[in-house]
Amino acid sequence: MLKEILQNVYDTKPLIHTITNYVTANDCANILLASDAKPIMADDPHEAEDITSISDGLCINIGTLNPNKLEAMLLAGKKANVLNHPVLLDPVGAGASRFRKDALKQLLEMIHFDVIRGNLSEIKTLMYETTDVSGVDSAETITDTNIHSVIALSRQASIQLHSIIVITGKIDVISNSTQSYCVYNGHPYMSRITGTGCMLSALMTAYITSNKENTLEACAGSCCAMGISGEIGVDRMKESDGNGSLRNYMLDAIFNLTPEELERRAKYELR
Amino acid sequence: MLKEILQNVYDTKPLIHTITNYVTANDCANILLASDAKPIMADDPHEAEDITSISDGLCINIGTLNPNKLEAMLLAGKKANVLNHPVLLDPVGAGASRFRKDALKQLLEMIHFDVIRGNLSEIKTLMYETTDVSGVDSAETITDTNIHSVIALSRQASIQLHSIIVITGKIDVISNSTQSYCVYNGHPYMSRITGTGCMLSALMTAYITSNKENTLEACAGSCCAMGISGEIGVDRMKESDGNGSLRNYMLDAIFNLTPEELERRAKYELR
Amino acid sequence: MLKEILQNVYDTKPLIHTITNYVTANDCANILLASDAKPIMADDPHEAEDITSISDGLCINIGTLNPNKLEAMLLAGKKANVLNHPVLLDPVGAGASRFRKDALKQLLEMIHFDVIRGNLSEIKTLMYETTDVSGVDSAETITDTNIHSVIALSRQASIQLHSIIVITGKIDVISNSTQSYCVYNGHPYMSRITGTGCMLSALMTAYITSNKENTLEACAGSCCAMGISGEIGVDRMKESDGNGSLRNYMLDAIFNLTPEELERRAKYELR
Repeated sequence: MLKEILQNVYDTKPLIHTITNYVTANDCANILLASDAKPIMADDPHEAEDITSISDGLCINIGTLNPNKLEAMLLAGKKANVLNHPVLLDPVGAGASRFRKDALKQLLEMIHFDVIRGNLSEIKTLMYETTDVSGVDSAETITDTNIHSVIALSRQASIQLHSIIVITGKIDVISNSTQSYCVYNGHPYMSRITGTGCMLSALMTAYITSNKENTLEACAGSCCAMGISGEIGVDRMKESDGNGSLRNYMLDAIFNLTPEELERRAKYELR
Repeated sequence: MLKEILQNVYDTKPLIHTITNYVTANDCANILLASDAKPIMADDPHEAEDITSISDGLCINIGTLNPNKLEAMLLAGKKANVLNHPVLLDPVGAGASRFRKDALKQLLEMIHFDVIRGNLSEIKTLMYETTDVSGVDSAETITDTNIHSVIALSRQASIQLHSIIVITGKIDVISNSTQSYCVYNGHPYMSRITGTGCMLSALMTAYITSNKENTLEACAGSCCAMGISGEIGVDRMKESDGNGSLRNYMLDAIFNLTPEELERRAKYELR
Repeated sequence: MLKEILQNVYDTKPLIHTITNYVTANDCANILLASDAKPIMADDPHEAEDITSISDGLCINIGTLNPNKLEAMLLAGKKANVLNHPVLLDPVGAGASRFRKDALKQLLEMIHFDVIRGNLSEIKTLMYETTDVSGVDSAETITDTNIHSVIALSRQASIQLHSIIVITGKIDVISNSTQSYCVYNGHPYMSRITGTGCMLSALMTAYITSNKENTLEACAGSCCAMGISGEIGVDRMKESDGNGSLRNYMLDAIFNLTPEELERRAKYELR
């Protein structure tokens, strides 16, 4: 039940160590606070382990990466594994550079990720190390026509990468090796705001941290919540509104989302 | 009179060198501009002293700290001391890591801070090097019941750290060794926006820079202004609004705050 | 025709590698997305060339500079030159430190910039290496009285720096060696939002990337668009609104700007 998933976030208010890019860090912090979770952001190797130690969950996002930040990620991730904290990876722009591919290889070798969330081309890059990415957006997206093959691919990725795989797009697919949630909430305008993917990753880390026994459903719940925030946000848009206002409306919607509303508005199926 | 305090900011439009974390840097810059002050942000040792030299005041915030940034803070702080520029320290998450504690030790040894602004656990960490912090929020806050002991602690901290001490929370306490302002403005929703503490520190630096002869009252004035902006912001909130809109409403309120309104709405006492 | 200029952005949706400061990176990304362009931000030397290679244009902004970022800029810029990608330089706070001046010298020696956009004192610093800057705002601005001398200066700068020169202020002047556009759109409140200059630079890079054969007019078009967004934003402001809301209204206005509206509202002349 998604209702309980969100209620658990509200009840436990998890502290999420978020190592993320500076472009969307503010939005990631605010969406965590909107959901009554708490952000802490520290990305230097000198304190990465200490910060993870006082946190409840860890979100690693490789945007605006540099070697120093990568080292902090490795230290934080290993510490989180030891402490049994949920760890999520957002492989932003996975195929955009050799540096990111090498970094991802290191991260995947040294850290166990409970969840990996990306778009279709990012997840494919992790699987095949192909380079068909344009910027940080997905070159191809999930549609009604390719949904079957995406589900198959996500389950294969889940086996290969030992993680729950979340592929987001027009439809979101959340898979372990045998089960898949498909989430149909959302709105195309969400791609016109920077960092909706990063924000979802931060929010999802809070959801899985507060629902350790129910990670797959927690991932689905956060995808529904994010999609619903886009739907509510677009509904609020007046004629003169654009992506500036929409960003705020989405944060507002997460802030006001009740467990019951999440349950009622969620559009998903288990396949 | 708080009226004059704000009028002096409007009249002098101080340029504030703000070395701060990347999570809330944008909000810090915008709140300075909202109050007709000017931000300049530079955090590399190669230019820290030059930037301080052309500025009027210095705000040092240790969020997303790294050794390079720390070196810039030390250089900027020492230069600001030489130039007699007001300097404020925001010890974000003071006890969250050994690195931050060591950094704060260095900063306190090498720089004279006119003002140190933090929450209760951060100020306690500075005094006792204890580690009871959860994230960057205060584990305990100031309430009617502990206000007497917090006032005593803040005065002791003021003597020990040779600075005016500002402890913010449900009530804000601003103390030198013998006098304390208690500020009652604000709203609990302010803690649901990232960086309200950082923003207050930036704003406070502008206030003390424009009121060098009246630092204690300038600190109190900025606490009132920030709290009033939260009150006005929450008053503006419609049913569908949340922390996304509230952040903007608070900036808007600082933008529109007149000296007279500050005077009229301020709730404080000198104890 | 400005109409075609904007239509070309909408038709080609250019991917802009934006190496910029962390204070306004989020706003730069969102204004690119508002104009249906796409941002990618990467500022480490390990991937700067790779990221430029998959992009269509490059924006270099020297705010919050450090040696690592500078190296990334040099690598990205040289690669962009090889690939014949449009490259724009925003010399934020050019004269504020010796470090920035030396960095600009290196950038100008090793990279050909199609466009350099700054305020009057920043452009003057590039020409004369003078230091009369206060913060990152212009000490002096362009007015009706000095417009003739500013036009002359911008053309001289264009010859000297081998770039189109855009000097923004109350009036924007866009010059090559023989021709100048003067743009009269805008509103004084725009200077009360951090990063309007940075945002314009990012947006301008998208415009010139989608209009390679028409760079001068593309620069003028982006200045008109930005100024119009300020005018529309200020028109939308209610009594309680300030710079927080205005920032969003400006993004909204760029999001909703049609080629026809740009054409109709643009106030400019070719001199």
